[in-house]
Amino acid sequence: MGTLSNRFDSHFLYRQISQVRSRSPLILNLTNTVVMNITANALLAVGASPVMAHAKEELENLVSIAHGLLINVGTLDAAFLESAKLAVRCAKRSGLPIVLDPAGAGASSFRTEAVRALLTGGGVSVLRGNASEISAIVDSGVKTRGVDTSVSSLSALSAAQNLSLTYGVTVVISGEVDLVVNKEQVASIRGGHSIMSRVTGMGCTATSLVAAFSAVCDSTFDAAVCSMAIASKAGEIAKENSHGPGTFVPAFLDTLYSLDETQLQIDIEVMNAP
Amino acid sequence: MGTLSNRFDSHFLYRQISQVRSRSPLILNLTNTVVMNITANALLAVGASPVMAHAKEELENLVSIAHGLLINVGTLDAAFLESAKLAVRCAKRSGLPIVLDPAGAGASSFRTEAVRALLTGGGVSVLRGNASEISAIVDSGVKTRGVDTSVSSLSALSAAQNLSLTYGVTVVISGEVDLVVNKEQVASIRGGHSIMSRVTGMGCTATSLVAAFSAVCDSTFDAAVCSMAIASKAGEIAKENSHGPGTFVPAFLDTLYSLDETQLQIDIEVMNAP
Amino acid sequence: MGTLSNRFDSHFLYRQISQVRSRSPLILNLTNTVVMNITANALLAVGASPVMAHAKEELENLVSIAHGLLINVGTLDAAFLESAKLAVRCAKRSGLPIVLDPAGAGASSFRTEAVRALLTGGGVSVLRGNASEISAIVDSGVKTRGVDTSVSSLSALSAAQNLSLTYGVTVVISGEVDLVVNKEQVASIRGGHSIMSRVTGMGCTATSLVAAFSAVCDSTFDAAVCSMAIASKAGEIAKENSHGPGTFVPAFLDTLYSLDETQLQIDIEVMNAP
Repeated sequence: MGTLSNRFDSHFLYRQISQVRSRSPLILNLTNTVVMNITANALLAVGASPVMAHAKEELENLVSIAHGLLINVGTLDAAFLESAKLAVRCAKRSGLPIVLDPAGAGASSFRTEAVRALLTGGGVSVLRGNASEISAIVDSGVKTRGVDTSVSSLSALSAAQNLSLTYGVTVVISGEVDLVVNKEQVASIRGGHSIMSRVTGMGCTATSLVAAFSAVCDSTFDAAVCSMAIASKAGEIAKENSHGPGTFVPAFLDTLYSLDETQLQIDIEVMNAP
Repeated sequence: MGTLSNRFDSHFLYRQISQVRSRSPLILNLTNTVVMNITANALLAVGASPVMAHAKEELENLVSIAHGLLINVGTLDAAFLESAKLAVRCAKRSGLPIVLDPAGAGASSFRTEAVRALLTGGGVSVLRGNASEISAIVDSGVKTRGVDTSVSSLSALSAAQNLSLTYGVTVVISGEVDLVVNKEQVASIRGGHSIMSRVTGMGCTATSLVAAFSAVCDSTFDAAVCSMAIASKAGEIAKENSHGPGTFVPAFLDTLYSLDETQLQIDIEVMNAP
Repeated sequence: MGTLSNRFDSHFLYRQISQVRSRSPLILNLTNTVVMNITANALLAVGASPVMAHAKEELENLVSIAHGLLINVGTLDAAFLESAKLAVRCAKRSGLPIVLDPAGAGASSFRTEAVRALLTGGGVSVLRGNASEISAIVDSGVKTRGVDTSVSSLSALSAAQNLSLTYGVTVVISGEVDLVVNKEQVASIRGGHSIMSRVTGMGCTATSLVAAFSAVCDSTFDAAVCSMAIASKAGEIAKENSHGPGTFVPAFLDTLYSLDETQLQIDIEVMNAP
């Protein structure tokens, strides 16, 4: 793959954050009960407006005022899955960006099948998982341990390209190096800190940010790259301002809130897909 | 409106907090899954005892040992609404104070209708929302963006007075200035900090405090004024002791826990209703 | 009761933590929506891997990859109870340690009966509650106030011994002094700090730790003693590094993450059962 001239410099990234801050996109979240609070707070901190809901009776109304939809299957059950499908149908009809977090795909066939069903229904614009989740969606032989990330993101690159081609989605594989994959390009983002794997919901939080940035960026690819870059950088800074995984969380939210252009020097490479 | 002599001085406010701390009222919360943790922690920090529950099978038992009931429709669905109605019926029969947070009213007709149904059933003593939520309950033409507060509290004053007359409730409109409205009086509370709108659940937390103070104050009007005043002041102090919306939350809980009389100089005005 | 030579010295405790850190047991949590986030973060901080789930469709799959099961009835309803029973059946068949938190037992007959049904089904290895919860499981005449702890742990000793004999479980009574009870022995652990009763989910968090330690310790008794000791000590240290119940939580998680052998001098006594 050849490296492209990189448009994701600090000026570009800061312009995207400024867009989120000034336009404050409303993001409808059908998400898991573990991370609801931190993802709502992360969306608020970055400048977006979250609404968390799941009742079928109101999803059409809520989609009609939203600028993006986030689906996260982390604590799914049959009723949640029905609501998620309905929300995706409504959002697809309205042309909203739809971001899917396959939390725990591969840990049970119920989850894996749920994620496939959501993708098959169409309309999903971005899928963000770790390497084993992404791999498991393509190959049921891959087993994951809950939402753990223990495998290199590169190992899921071909699965991601497969998913991108099959479903027309941008795929994010998060890990030590985050990869953003669509049919034409692959971006790699270096950064973050290992402490983030000792805090619940950091991946889910990044996925929520993708939904917010999808509402303001020119493309879902750009939105995914910006979100992962910003989450990584905020993680690095928060690590410096905290003493462990507990104080990391408030420091991370503080950082999302106050990030400025000088802090957005991030190691991002973009290559043409092979 | 003429300003009344103001009984809400620091001495009065501190006496009410001391009552909460010494009597530790048990507050039954049927609330949303985003804010359960922070509202439970805020109730504990201020000196009350929270219990969160929603199963129909146990609501009568729990109401029988509780001193106040909090209903928050932030993540409602049909089953939650049935449980909320049952809890309100039980609490009304027992004469418990019942505080309702119409989180997101106006964002969907399902929410708006749910809030109206709960009010119509009777027994609700305090309703606490932001200006657009309160307005939407009266006028379905008002649209809100989830739980955002973007409108001045004064704009909802007549809607609040309307609700107070119709349902016999004390209405709190929260915003930059909080208004507490019943048939005879209007109190305005200045304070707080804009960072609070970048943290999820600050309004919901204030509503929970109203439930705790309702269990010890002489009137629901007093309970609402005390709670909003204390939440505002704790927010101001927490802002000084934090670096952004992330560190704000722990600082807010620390402040609720340690507030003393010298910190309770709050700008509160009380007027006769027009 | 005669005091036994105490094997729970700092070296032993640190070896158990090291086992959790190196083996990172996967703990399946069917738990309440108030404490999901803090218990997931506590498990991660101590070195374990949490997965939170409740859908019947996936519990068998998840149990098959888990090393321990945690059931917490804090926000139970009929559907949750069915899922909990199913998870316990699967885990029992696989020989997994099963830890039960009877959060709020005694506050409603629904909760008390649910806990009894779970115990009667068999397979539960450890039960952890406060004195009134443990007492209420044995004697329906005992009333509790939600999840409050207001009674001395010693008052529930005979109830705990009764439960241990009847159901073959290790019972933890938490309080100012924590007691760990099985048929042969009683351990008492002194430590912790009263601020922990002003933070939601500290008991639930300790129960989650028991599940993690049960996956690596030689016996459930050892796992219970280690977990309660470590939670108490982390609480003491966190109290020193915080300013109230809000900053206590991140400090507690930081401490769990970084505990070393020199910090594990804990006042533990072990006696033969009478």
